[in-house]
Amino acid sequence: MGTLHQVTPGESVDLSEITTAGKDLHDDRDKAEKEFKKFRKRIAELQPVLYAEGKHKLLVVLQAMDAGGKDSTTRSVFEGVNPQGVHVISFKAPSKRELAHDYLWRVHRNVPPLGMIHVFNRSHYEDVLIVRVDELVPQEVWEPRFDQINQFEKFLTETGTTILKFYLHISKDEQKERFQSRLDEPHKHWKFSLQDLEKRKQWDQYRTAFNDVITKCSTEHAPWHVIPADQKWYRNWAVSKILCEKLEELNPQYPPDEPGLDQIVIE
Amino acid sequence: MGTLHQVTPGESVDLSEITTAGKDLHDDRDKAEKEFKKFRKRIAELQPVLYAEGKHKLLVVLQAMDAGGKDSTTRSVFEGVNPQGVHVISFKAPSKRELAHDYLWRVHRNVPPLGMIHVFNRSHYEDVLIVRVDELVPQEVWEPRFDQINQFEKFLTETGTTILKFYLHISKDEQKERFQSRLDEPHKHWKFSLQDLEKRKQWDQYRTAFNDVITKCSTEHAPWHVIPADQKWYRNWAVSKILCEKLEELNPQYPPDEPGLDQIVIE
Repeated sequence: MGTLHQVTPGESVDLSEITTAGKDLHDDRDKAEKEFKKFRKRIAELQPVLYAEGKHKLLVVLQAMDAGGKDSTTRSVFEGVNPQGVHVISFKAPSKRELAHDYLWRVHRNVPPLGMIHVFNRSHYEDVLIVRVDELVPQEVWEPRFDQINQFEKFLTETGTTILKFYLHISKDEQKERFQSRLDEPHKHWKFSLQDLEKRKQWDQYRTAFNDVITKCSTEHAPWHVIPADQKWYRNWAVSKILCEKLEELNPQYPPDEPGLDQIVIE
Repeated sequence: MGTLHQVTPGESVDLSEITTAGKDLHDDRDKAEKEFKKFRKRIAELQPVLYAEGKHKLLVVLQAMDAGGKDSTTRSVFEGVNPQGVHVISFKAPSKRELAHDYLWRVHRNVPPLGMIHVFNRSHYEDVLIVRVDELVPQEVWEPRFDQINQFEKFLTETGTTILKFYLHISKDEQKERFQSRLDEPHKHWKFSLQDLEKRKQWDQYRTAFNDVITKCSTEHAPWHVIPADQKWYRNWAVSKILCEKLEELNPQYPPDEPGLDQIVIE
């Protein structure tokens, strides 16, 4: 891996060999939490400049097993940004109308325009995950999608979009604990569905599908990051650090003044 | 007016008779700022329940003269909400494609679905504001729009959307000060355009157009609120109070448990 948790293009990934325990990678939780707050503050500082500049487009893709922390990451990392410049798009089961189109149609409609950050909570990757595991289409349909997705993402980056993809990596035990806490805490019941248990039974099939996603779709232009996510504090630290560094790299600047701005008198 | 700053349907509004000075209406700025924080916290508490419940749709419309505080209100009031449940839509000059449709087409595409709060930064009202003042269409085209807009908003409320419309009411002097501060502070230059001065020269025409908007489109289902907005602290207090009270009225609840949730054992 190159930068933090980034998968090297061409590398064959077996998620079972990658730790889910961020705590083993960072021995100082207090320090990580302080740094996280610093990163988050910096993100909230840079985002309005990105918006004002209107030159870059940033797409953040979040995928995970159920209860992997997609919602919570979004909430934590983007707390404090101006909601005007950050849109979160949650992709659900496609509608009849969406199904009448190709699977990238609804995705393309939701990519960020200039100056914006869009966060995909689930994405086109579901079309090679649940669609594959539940056999919603035959293999000869989903198999070519890896290449199609790579081409699509390449096109997006060629036309000015920066893509950051995060797989929030939790263990099967951690999922059990999170499901249990959704059952134990009444205000979390709405997040729990009996379907979640069915999907938990398919853990191994999803694992295989995710291995393929991350192996086949970690490209130079849009690599995956596999974030150890059993500990939320580590996950937040890592995601916000990577995001922050990418924003620093884009180095947004307020746009140049209109000519004549210094001679203006307001009547 | 009924509830705070709400225009009574049928009332003929002359904005020159309504104060822009919130400080004259609330003599304790410290108290207002503390209350604002309380309201904002409550909004951030209720929004996730609204989202979880997926029963209501809330549309907040912001209109104002330039520098009236649309961006700043959005940022201030919605700081701390989960960006997943709040989308801000900034309507700019319509694209060629948008102009090829009726003027409500792009608006309808952006109304909130169940569980969501959408904030319109500018809106379909521009089609009876700038479009009228700059004579982009003749009077026989814009004049019927008041009724069309009322019908459209009525339809939205009949199909489950709650609409809150805010006119952020600033004085011509306050606009001058805000423009000046945009000129004086380099990181605000990008917000300033020479066009703004042209529009400032049209202050009286916009005033007439806004008087009509607020008089004709304050309906039972979607009344306007005229918020004295020269003092940001008062504006934030008033907008967050009205929003908070509306959310309390909607009284969102976490959805009922799926049957059998209490007998679940996670393998």
